[in-house]
Amino acid sequence: MNFLEERILKDGQVLNSDILKVDSFLNHQLDVELLDRIGDEFYERFKDDGITKIVTIEASGIAIAVMTARKFGVPVVFAKKARSRNLDAEVLISTVHSFTYNRDYTITVSRKYLEPDDRILIVDDFMANGLAAEGLISLCEQAGADVAGLGICVEKGFQEGGKSIRAKGYRIESIAIIDEMSENMIKFREQ
Amino acid sequence: MNFLEERILKDGQVLNSDILKVDSFLNHQLDVELLDRIGDEFYERFKDDGITKIVTIEASGIAIAVMTARKFGVPVVFAKKARSRNLDAEVLISTVHSFTYNRDYTITVSRKYLEPDDRILIVDDFMANGLAAEGLISLCEQAGADVAGLGICVEKGFQEGGKSIRAKGYRIESIAIIDEMSENMIKFREQ
Repeated sequence: MNFLEERILKDGQVLNSDILKVDSFLNHQLDVELLDRIGDEFYERFKDDGITKIVTIEASGIAIAVMTARKFGVPVVFAKKARSRNLDAEVLISTVHSFTYNRDYTITVSRKYLEPDDRILIVDDFMANGLAAEGLISLCEQAGADVAGLGICVEKGFQEGGKSIRAKGYRIESIAIIDEMSENMIKFREQ
Repeated sequence: MNFLEERILKDGQVLNSDILKVDSFLNHQLDVELLDRIGDEFYERFKDDGITKIVTIEASGIAIAVMTARKFGVPVVFAKKARSRNLDAEVLISTVHSFTYNRDYTITVSRKYLEPDDRILIVDDFMANGLAAEGLISLCEQAGADVAGLGICVEKGFQEGGKSIRAKGYRIESIAIIDEMSENMIKFREQ
C-alpha cells in the first residue's frame, strides 16, 4: 500500500458507497507534508515528459498543483469555475456538468496562459465521472497545447471517468484507485 | 522596493484607479518561485508568534497559504465560499459582502479544523475593503482560536480594510501597500 492509500484508510471517511471524505488532509484542511509527497510522486511519474505547465481547477486542485509545480519548476494555471469580472475578455471556455449539484457550470482560462507549445500536466484531487478533467483537457486543446497526462490523487475506479478518458488515449496516473468502498471497507486497485 | 513591488510594476496591469490585475503571476497563472518568496517573507515576519495553522479563503488564497504553511510546518485550512453538500453539518459560518459581485456570500469552515488552542495566521492575495478578512477573523474567533495576524500580499491602502482591521488591534503584514494608482503609475507606501 502506498502513502496515500495508507492515509485514506487512516483518516478518510466513507459516507456511503459513493462518497469518500478526505477533508481532514486533502481538500479542506491541507496536510502540506502529504501534498509535498504527492508532488514528488507526480514528478517521478512525469519527469521525462517535458512538462511546461501544471493545469488544475479551483479550488481543491490548487494546493496539489502548486506543490507539484514546485518539483517541475514550472507555473500553475488554474481554471476558474465562473467567469470573473476581472478576467480578460480573451478566455477559453468549457462547460462541465456537476452531478453533485445537478447543474452545468462554465470553466474558463485566460487564453494567454495556455500556449500551443505547452506540454500540460493536469492534476486534481479526485476523478469520478471525469467531466471536470474532460473540461480541462478541452481548454488545453482549444489552446493547441499538448496534454502530456493527468495526475490524480484519488480515482474512483468504480465510476466511468478514468476508463473513458484512458480510452481516448490519455495517460492517467492515479496515486490511489478505489474499486469499491463501503462504511467498513475500501478496496484499492493493485497497480 | 521589495521583490513583490518590483513584480507588480513589471507584470501587474492597472485597469483603473481601483483594479490591479496580477493574474499573470499571483491569482490565475501562478509563479511558484514568487509564491515561495512570499512564504519566506510571511515566515520571517511571524516566525516567533507560535503559529499553528494558516487560514485562507478559496480560491486564490490557497496557493499562498500552502507555500506559507510549508515554511511553518503547519496545516492549512481554507474557508469555502458556499456550503458544499459534502461538508459536515458542524460548520462555522460568516457572511461576507462582495462589492465586486454586489451580493452577500457565506463562508464556512468545519468546526473541527479550528481549535481553541490554535494560533492562526490568516493569509490572502489582496486586501481592499477587508470584508473577506473580517469574515475569516470571525470564523477563527467563533472557534475560540487566537488570530496572531494577517499576511497580505497586496493591500489597497486607499481602501478602508487595512485601517479598519488595524484599528481593531489586529496585526497586518502586507508585503506591498498601494496608496494610489492609475494607468501610468503605482505609488507604494514606504514601509
